[in-house]
Amino acid sequence: MDVPHGFNPTLILALNLAGTFIFGLSGGLAAVRAKLDLFGILVLAAVVGLAGGITRDLLIGTPPATFRDWRYLAAAGAAGLVSYFARPQLERVQRGVLVFDAFGLGLFCVTGATKSLDFGLGPAQAILLGAITGIGGGMLRDVLLREVPTVLRHELYAIPALLGAGVLVAAQESGSTNPVWPVLGVVVCVSVRLAGLKYRVNVPIAPSERDRGQSRD
Amino acid sequence: MDVPHGFNPTLILALNLAGTFIFGLSGGLAAVRAKLDLFGILVLAAVVGLAGGITRDLLIGTPPATFRDWRYLAAAGAAGLVSYFARPQLERVQRGVLVFDAFGLGLFCVTGATKSLDFGLGPAQAILLGAITGIGGGMLRDVLLREVPTVLRHELYAIPALLGAGVLVAAQESGSTNPVWPVLGVVVCVSVRLAGLKYRVNVPIAPSERDRGQSRD
Amino acid sequence: MDVPHGFNPTLILALNLAGTFIFGLSGGLAAVRAKLDLFGILVLAAVVGLAGGITRDLLIGTPPATFRDWRYLAAAGAAGLVSYFARPQLERVQRGVLVFDAFGLGLFCVTGATKSLDFGLGPAQAILLGAITGIGGGMLRDVLLREVPTVLRHELYAIPALLGAGVLVAAQESGSTNPVWPVLGVVVCVSVRLAGLKYRVNVPIAPSERDRGQSRD
Repeated sequence: MDVPHGFNPTLILALNLAGTFIFGLSGGLAAVRAKLDLFGILVLAAVVGLAGGITRDLLIGTPPATFRDWRYLAAAGAAGLVSYFARPQLERVQRGVLVFDAFGLGLFCVTGATKSLDFGLGPAQAILLGAITGIGGGMLRDVLLREVPTVLRHELYAIPALLGAGVLVAAQESGSTNPVWPVLGVVVCVSVRLAGLKYRVNVPIAPSERDRGQSRD
Repeated sequence: MDVPHGFNPTLILALNLAGTFIFGLSGGLAAVRAKLDLFGILVLAAVVGLAGGITRDLLIGTPPATFRDWRYLAAAGAAGLVSYFARPQLERVQRGVLVFDAFGLGLFCVTGATKSLDFGLGPAQAILLGAITGIGGGMLRDVLLREVPTVLRHELYAIPALLGAGVLVAAQESGSTNPVWPVLGVVVCVSVRLAGLKYRVNVPIAPSERDRGQSRD
Repeated sequence: MDVPHGFNPTLILALNLAGTFIFGLSGGLAAVRAKLDLFGILVLAAVVGLAGGITRDLLIGTPPATFRDWRYLAAAGAAGLVSYFARPQLERVQRGVLVFDAFGLGLFCVTGATKSLDFGLGPAQAILLGAITGIGGGMLRDVLLREVPTVLRHELYAIPALLGAGVLVAAQESGSTNPVWPVLGVVVCVSVRLAGLKYRVNVPIAPSERDRGQSRD
């Protein structure tokens, strides 16, 4: 259902499972750092891996698909177990995890937008739901760990997802089913995300707040 | 669907969009104060403007209607942009914003209760869903900004919404389709809210806690 | 719908209402302690009593059943009122409340898993949804009160729910409709929970964190 035209469903499934696993690592590691117990680590891995897609499906008004598919639950659970046992090793490859995370973001925003268009939502909603698929899990992770969601405060994280979903939606709305567009959507999202990380680009805060310093953590 | 009997749907749409915009200002301003970035400001504006109605629709078991309608998204987005650029001007007219917010609350509780009755829910549920439509967005705003929701702690905010929805539900249950009742529901909600603000009325805390002071902020 | 084979629906309803009331006490007391006002106390009672089942139904993709049934709302509301007026008396019987809470957990995990199987979800999902029915309300309570959910940090709370739901699902999947299995599921959940409380058993945190002490509260 969330397979863009011209793609092999098995390929998309494999990529989605990989994205769920990588996102799950992000949740599991955050839980390990916050000294949650093993159950908490598994829950946080599942939250980051699955909550974006579940939120998208609730907003579309269709039963959450990934929750019914045991392979997604298994991918998230595996990520939780890896986080539990291998935090030190994962910290050492943190830069690598950020690159994989960017690919997960790119993939989820494109497949999320595809599913939204398939269910008849308008282009603006499809772009938003693509981004929500990518960023929703991380937002819920931060709320559960009692933090203001990072994605709302700084860094380029939502913008790449919106751009990637936008490429897919623009192509579909203009009638093209060329498989180059979903790939381009992923590439745009990943490139902007990695460039933002490299050059430490932040979304601006309101003009009225800029001279007041960063008094709030 | 959420248009009370005897009203012009276009009028209700215009009022609902105005309510979404005003509620969006409340979210956008809170985000500006918390030094969220532009994306966070837009998200908080959308959360306060839309999350109450989305929660109501999820509890009814119908796909969230406002999310599918680009005009609501546009109203919330506009409120976010205004908050981003014009915080100082908005702070100066804060008293005015509170009055508009009371109207948004009155409108949402009446239209939320109407939609719930249309979907066959009982009168108690319709009153609750009317109030949830009005207060749900503000609660999620507070959770995202890592605060205990204001509406649970003090001030008369939920009571006016419950009363306003109660007037509408009582009239509908007694078979009246006279358009005076929805108007009266809004008037009751707005009046009680504004009187509560003026005379600083709070809902009481538990008797056992009253002599312990307000040790917790 | 959530009645296991061979049971009297009226009995299950009575037990579910009792579970909702007991869970509601847990939410109401937490709200009293946090000095929420009467409205906040009622909301927290409803959240702990109902949110687990509502989350389960949203994940299944069916309209939330308990929200439509005024008896569940009344049970949660009564728990809120009792918390408001009788905190001192309740604190004195806190040990008793924990035992009742264990029964609520056992009951909800078994009826939640039953409903999930009835809706055609797989065994892993049914076990998870059984546990979510039991623990979801308490997690949302903690988020609203700005705390990292207890169930993610320590104590045996989710494990008993997973075990109880597991007994029910294993029996149903093997084709047995003998009413002894749901009862055994409840007994397993309650026993493990009470034993965990008595011997202060905790789920382990990650190996890498154990020598770092409990720097985070």
